[in-house]
Amino acid sequence: MRDPSRRLRFLLVQAFTLPPASPNRYRDDGDTKEAKLMNHAAVAPLLADIDWDLHPGPIAPHGDWPVETREEFAIAGVARLPIVRQACESGTYDAIVLLGGGDPGYMEAREIGRRHRVPVTANAHAQMHIAMTLGNRFSIIDISETHNAHMAELVVRYRMTHGLASIRNIDYPLPRPAHRGRHTLRGEAEKHAQGEHSGMLEAAVKAALAALEEDGAEVILLGCSGAFWLQAPLQARLASLGWDVPVLEGYRCGIELARLMVHLGVDASGITFPADPPAHRRRRRIA
Amino acid sequence: MRDPSRRLRFLLVQAFTLPPASPNRYRDDGDTKEAKLMNHAAVAPLLADIDWDLHPGPIAPHGDWPVETREEFAIAGVARLPIVRQACESGTYDAIVLLGGGDPGYMEAREIGRRHRVPVTANAHAQMHIAMTLGNRFSIIDISETHNAHMAELVVRYRMTHGLASIRNIDYPLPRPAHRGRHTLRGEAEKHAQGEHSGMLEAAVKAALAALEEDGAEVILLGCSGAFWLQAPLQARLASLGWDVPVLEGYRCGIELARLMVHLGVDASGITFPADPPAHRRRRRIA
Amino acid sequence: MRDPSRRLRFLLVQAFTLPPASPNRYRDDGDTKEAKLMNHAAVAPLLADIDWDLHPGPIAPHGDWPVETREEFAIAGVARLPIVRQACESGTYDAIVLLGGGDPGYMEAREIGRRHRVPVTANAHAQMHIAMTLGNRFSIIDISETHNAHMAELVVRYRMTHGLASIRNIDYPLPRPAHRGRHTLRGEAEKHAQGEHSGMLEAAVKAALAALEEDGAEVILLGCSGAFWLQAPLQARLASLGWDVPVLEGYRCGIELARLMVHLGVDASGITFPADPPAHRRRRRIA
Amino acid sequence: MRDPSRRLRFLLVQAFTLPPASPNRYRDDGDTKEAKLMNHAAVAPLLADIDWDLHPGPIAPHGDWPVETREEFAIAGVARLPIVRQACESGTYDAIVLLGGGDPGYMEAREIGRRHRVPVTANAHAQMHIAMTLGNRFSIIDISETHNAHMAELVVRYRMTHGLASIRNIDYPLPRPAHRGRHTLRGEAEKHAQGEHSGMLEAAVKAALAALEEDGAEVILLGCSGAFWLQAPLQARLASLGWDVPVLEGYRCGIELARLMVHLGVDASGITFPADPPAHRRRRRIA
Amino acid sequence: MRDPSRRLRFLLVQAFTLPPASPNRYRDDGDTKEAKLMNHAAVAPLLADIDWDLHPGPIAPHGDWPVETREEFAIAGVARLPIVRQACESGTYDAIVLLGGGDPGYMEAREIGRRHRVPVTANAHAQMHIAMTLGNRFSIIDISETHNAHMAELVVRYRMTHGLASIRNIDYPLPRPAHRGRHTLRGEAEKHAQGEHSGMLEAAVKAALAALEEDGAEVILLGCSGAFWLQAPLQARLASLGWDVPVLEGYRCGIELARLMVHLGVDASGITFPADPPAHRRRRRIA
Amino acid sequence: MRDPSRRLRFLLVQAFTLPPASPNRYRDDGDTKEAKLMNHAAVAPLLADIDWDLHPGPIAPHGDWPVETREEFAIAGVARLPIVRQACESGTYDAIVLLGGGDPGYMEAREIGRRHRVPVTANAHAQMHIAMTLGNRFSIIDISETHNAHMAELVVRYRMTHGLASIRNIDYPLPRPAHRGRHTLRGEAEKHAQGEHSGMLEAAVKAALAALEEDGAEVILLGCSGAFWLQAPLQARLASLGWDVPVLEGYRCGIELARLMVHLGVDASGITFPADPPAHRRRRRIA
Repeated sequence: MRDPSRRLRFLLVQAFTLPPASPNRYRDDGDTKEAKLMNHAAVAPLLADIDWDLHPGPIAPHGDWPVETREEFAIAGVARLPIVRQACESGTYDAIVLLGGGDPGYMEAREIGRRHRVPVTANAHAQMHIAMTLGNRFSIIDISETHNAHMAELVVRYRMTHGLASIRNIDYPLPRPAHRGRHTLRGEAEKHAQGEHSGMLEAAVKAALAALEEDGAEVILLGCSGAFWLQAPLQARLASLGWDVPVLEGYRCGIELARLMVHLGVDASGITFPADPPAHRRRRRIA
Repeated sequence: MRDPSRRLRFLLVQAFTLPPASPNRYRDDGDTKEAKLMNHAAVAPLLADIDWDLHPGPIAPHGDWPVETREEFAIAGVARLPIVRQACESGTYDAIVLLGGGDPGYMEAREIGRRHRVPVTANAHAQMHIAMTLGNRFSIIDISETHNAHMAELVVRYRMTHGLASIRNIDYPLPRPAHRGRHTLRGEAEKHAQGEHSGMLEAAVKAALAALEEDGAEVILLGCSGAFWLQAPLQARLASLGWDVPVLEGYRCGIELARLMVHLGVDASGITFPADPPAHRRRRRIA
Repeated sequence: MRDPSRRLRFLLVQAFTLPPASPNRYRDDGDTKEAKLMNHAAVAPLLADIDWDLHPGPIAPHGDWPVETREEFAIAGVARLPIVRQACESGTYDAIVLLGGGDPGYMEAREIGRRHRVPVTANAHAQMHIAMTLGNRFSIIDISETHNAHMAELVVRYRMTHGLASIRNIDYPLPRPAHRGRHTLRGEAEKHAQGEHSGMLEAAVKAALAALEEDGAEVILLGCSGAFWLQAPLQARLASLGWDVPVLEGYRCGIELARLMVHLGVDASGITFPADPPAHRRRRRIA
Repeated sequence: MRDPSRRLRFLLVQAFTLPPASPNRYRDDGDTKEAKLMNHAAVAPLLADIDWDLHPGPIAPHGDWPVETREEFAIAGVARLPIVRQACESGTYDAIVLLGGGDPGYMEAREIGRRHRVPVTANAHAQMHIAMTLGNRFSIIDISETHNAHMAELVVRYRMTHGLASIRNIDYPLPRPAHRGRHTLRGEAEKHAQGEHSGMLEAAVKAALAALEEDGAEVILLGCSGAFWLQAPLQARLASLGWDVPVLEGYRCGIELARLMVHLGVDASGITFPADPPAHRRRRRIA
Repeated sequence: MRDPSRRLRFLLVQAFTLPPASPNRYRDDGDTKEAKLMNHAAVAPLLADIDWDLHPGPIAPHGDWPVETREEFAIAGVARLPIVRQACESGTYDAIVLLGGGDPGYMEAREIGRRHRVPVTANAHAQMHIAMTLGNRFSIIDISETHNAHMAELVVRYRMTHGLASIRNIDYPLPRPAHRGRHTLRGEAEKHAQGEHSGMLEAAVKAALAALEEDGAEVILLGCSGAFWLQAPLQARLASLGWDVPVLEGYRCGIELARLMVHLGVDASGITFPADPPAHRRRRRIA
Repeated sequence: MRDPSRRLRFLLVQAFTLPPASPNRYRDDGDTKEAKLMNHAAVAPLLADIDWDLHPGPIAPHGDWPVETREEFAIAGVARLPIVRQACESGTYDAIVLLGGGDPGYMEAREIGRRHRVPVTANAHAQMHIAMTLGNRFSIIDISETHNAHMAELVVRYRMTHGLASIRNIDYPLPRPAHRGRHTLRGEAEKHAQGEHSGMLEAAVKAALAALEEDGAEVILLGCSGAFWLQAPLQARLASLGWDVPVLEGYRCGIELARLMVHLGVDASGITFPADPPAHRRRRRIA
């Protein structure tokens, strides 16, 4: 049984890091772990009693732009697995929190974690499960058509179609060659932080209202980690319009679901993620 | 934003208390809150950093036996609501954890909690949601046919039918007039604690194996708080047979889900539980 | 076998009665059972060959206003159960029809009825089942956001989500303190009866058209007994606009479903509502 | 509005009539309508206050044996439609009850009925809907593999898959060339009526127990009108074994659902069965 | 094992033929099989390596207009079965392709085909299955309210409700007495072929855009064979508007699915379509 | 429009190749493309009119054993993508058929194929879709618990849960370090080919019977390409026991589905797999 007086130790792993010279960078990486962690100020209270490290993730193996296509998610996901394995084998961590809105490599990382009894959580997965404890249906405010397609597949893979009201596209994509010359989410968080008008926030308000009024959403999620900064301002704006609904984002959800798992002494089912070889034998499986 | 250095304050509320002279009592109530809290030793680590109170619940208003029928659950549930309201109005608590396997009064209590922004959790609800983060389908090991029928309705109300593999009946009911003269769960936990053979544990092992092998279960839940003591021995027995699966119980799940909600600053959606009157207006709702 | 020449005896039970001095009353209670029964003229033909009594229901135990929140429905539901039990035990009635759009206490009342082999029906439940014999999907025209949330839960509890096209809110709530100073449904039926314009009817027509054109509804239901008077005028208005669809209301549906059950000699399944104790033993239940 | 003092007039229409010389006949047709109506004694109380006629159905157009294959059901169904149309056009009847377990021609007959505002009911359809008012899931005790396949399609067409626990095959088929030389259901009802052992009843008891214990059934239906005589003895046998569950059959369910529709003044939705041409216009339909 | 060097032999069977004098004809029948086959030019490449015959179908048995109601589809379907049986018994064909958008007689024809191990395909069925290999959800662009109702039933019967985004009504019905004096689809294909404006094509573009933008469609199907000519121009128009999605029609889908089945040596499951009598025995069937 | 007289050109791509020295090899790779293609004799008739190449796939990047875990499938899938891209860019092929039972890299490969309008098919995906054209539900006969878990996820990702009756484990895994010292599928195909008893075939017969009799399967699929040789003998054995059901395997299904797509001129929906950047803009997506 876990000693409750010992501080928990978490590893947070980014999805990838862009090369410093990439023209598609959309934020500063920072020098400290706090600086590297996007929206640190909002996340910090949850990490106050945790000893945490941040791994920057693999240098983007697919190109010098953020992941957005299915192929890029798959490549980035595979590239993150050695980091997860090493962290598990080190015996250093009580849990691993995968950062990044689209959860690259998550199911495989959990399989690895399971071998070591280390809970692994991820941003979209944690958001969806927590949303369902708060309301009956969620919408995901998301950044681009291609990212939407990936999020829709995550909803299916996580068997959450009953919970999805809609994915609403605000069309503020990540920078990538195909988007050159059009607006992206770059700079939007900074503008908002400086008290300037952010078109991205306005688009998110509009999309969330449509989700609440037309699609049946009762909780709002954010699809891309580059949009997680919207959590507080979007929730406030909706409340000011009479819509008192939770807006979730992935970092805090991933951290708290990991804490919950550690506290309960669970990580995953050995049937969902069988051992190699499995100790049990089942004649029949359903999906 | 919550100050992370302040200790959380939780109220745990039992479903009901039987009159001292009831012939259908199945456990001692104890003098301290720790003694009153069933399976306190297993729960204690999770409460170590929380300031918690225990409310014994209303004196059973339906009769001098534990709740088991739909009618009894409804009566006990309504009787618990004034306790919840008073606790919310007191401003003393960060969260309320309803104790009792069948969640009497839970949806109504959340509605009350929502008015005060106080998260309210309950044992079956929390178990089901946490189970779904660990595997794809759960079975509930439960104590009697009538209790099974109630648990099946909870699964439906909580919109968790996609997650239910089965409810398995071990037929160790709570004491009640209709069960007079036949075996109940009374004394089983004590026998096991003293190293004696417990027919109830054996029945639970058998039922859980059937759930895992035949019904497609990947996680095991416990239906009645009078069976929550099975958590550790059942999980150990299954593991010894090659089935490395999580067995959950309601007290710890309720506490940790409450903590998660408090940490994230959420309690429920204002659409799921509208304010009175609601600030928003929605033309269309789906189920 | 029932003697078909004997007249049936039904008890109709209101959900609650408001104290005479309540400022939130929205109709006269009347002195005779006919006067007490809302929309009696429309219901009378169905009762012509039945010996029926009307029970006014409990004096509203939750406050001096009609039920609308989850808590109020639960309290009123529990308060109605002793009336049901007494009626069953009296051996006087062939069936019990619970009045009130939101079916307070229905599942528990059926459990009680089952012990005595007395069918118990309720307004929303009967409407939904009858609707599904007429078309593939229904919408519920309902009076307020909070009542909508309750109706959505009923749809889930009755396992009718596949049949629900939508719940459409016309925003003519019942009088209650939170609605003081704004329009309610009070007086609307009377205005319509006197040939005056009723904003409530107009809102219902508009909502029903949206349900039929946009939501996929094929049958229209009415959510609140305070709106059951809309049945005939709403159906006529829709027909005049080319939409030849059934509009149902709860009183007649409850009465006729009760008659059907009595004629067939059935009330409910003993597995759905097990006896206390059950004569059968089932090892496995699904939801 | 219907005058409640006028007796209802129903037409009952058999699925088909075998030529007198057919070697595959399994019952006497009788000379009176009462004699022609299978299990008349059980049905009579429901018809006591109704003026009813019986149409023998078309002379079997597919061959001189009862319908069992998809092709035979389609042929018999089409052959029954002129009878339905003529009955509707006659203006004589308040409702039409199609007899025959597999509902040949039902959806088309309802379309015809709709044009004349005459409710049309059928045996399987009525059974399924009534079953769902009594419990959460039904099993169909049915006579042969091929008939099972047809019943499964009916369940799908009637959008009742959520309600089906199972179709259990007792393998007492109708007489047909392909079954020559093996046992059929012929003579089983008579044996039981004379107090002799019926293998068909025993097989039904066994199948129903399996449905209740293993498949999750809460109500039992009968698939073929040639098995409707099982209703009372099967229900009694199950009750004697501790399973107090309703067993339904199609004739009574069809009659009572028709009465309910007549009493409520409904027959079907004009969207489900559009007029020719429809008065409304819908841009979008879902399934 | 099939000899791959032998050319395949297919029979294409029309749904029905209108009498030459019918005022409701909407196309010329032609003298050759090529002329009789609607949109032959588009279909020809797929038939280039197949020896094919065209059967004109039965002379319309329901009246001198195209099928549109449920009743008409049932009658036409039954009338086509002898053609299918004769073709199967002839031993001449590797596969039978039923022509006609609403698949009259399809399930029964497959049952017949199964007895002879001859694959039978149909237009709507093939379109739906192929659509699901290309995207996650399809919409059907369809010609009239009544035809829509039939298509919706096909979607249910084919267990494709999970795949249906919507049926969109363009309101260009087939000629029939009830539509006399209003526009139909007659002449629209010809207008388009001659480079003239076709209101039907414009309506299809508008409906398809609504399906893609609002309903969640990812693939477009065509409901009526009289609208199959829209395939190429509709796909081109959508592509020109930025929507690069497949538009399918039934003739080509039916032919290619038939070829696939012949190549794989399969026609249907003997459980779905049991032999008469079946060689196997199953105790339990689900829908 | 495709010229039907031109022979199609397909590329078949294996999932991976084990290093020659691997102790976990379970078949000879062969020198010719025919020798490399497992079960070539059975597949050859389908390739007779196709110009095809075989790519051996990447040298197994995860280790010197076949893929079985989630991690291994992800790694192998990503390693196959450059092969797919290069093939698409070459302009040489009409379609690409991915070989390997668990479809590593399939969704990502389709995304790549889409950019070039090249259809890409895979073994499990094609089997499932074709199975659903033949019957209502399929079971997958599969080789090991861990592979089962992967196949279950594929069923979910392919949105085929409604079609899955069960995955039945025959426990003849691929060779891998964790299985050292226990039986694997190595040598089973060869034993059967030489007329010897194959325990693997016997286990498959037993599993398939259970699937057909107990689970509701109507069609049988094979999960692992190392088990595809079972297709003919398993189907024959089932037929000899009275179960006349199709048994499918992935190679032939993948080839024929690819041919169908090429013939119809389709590859995938541009909404399911958006272009980069997409030409359309959608505000709302559902899963």
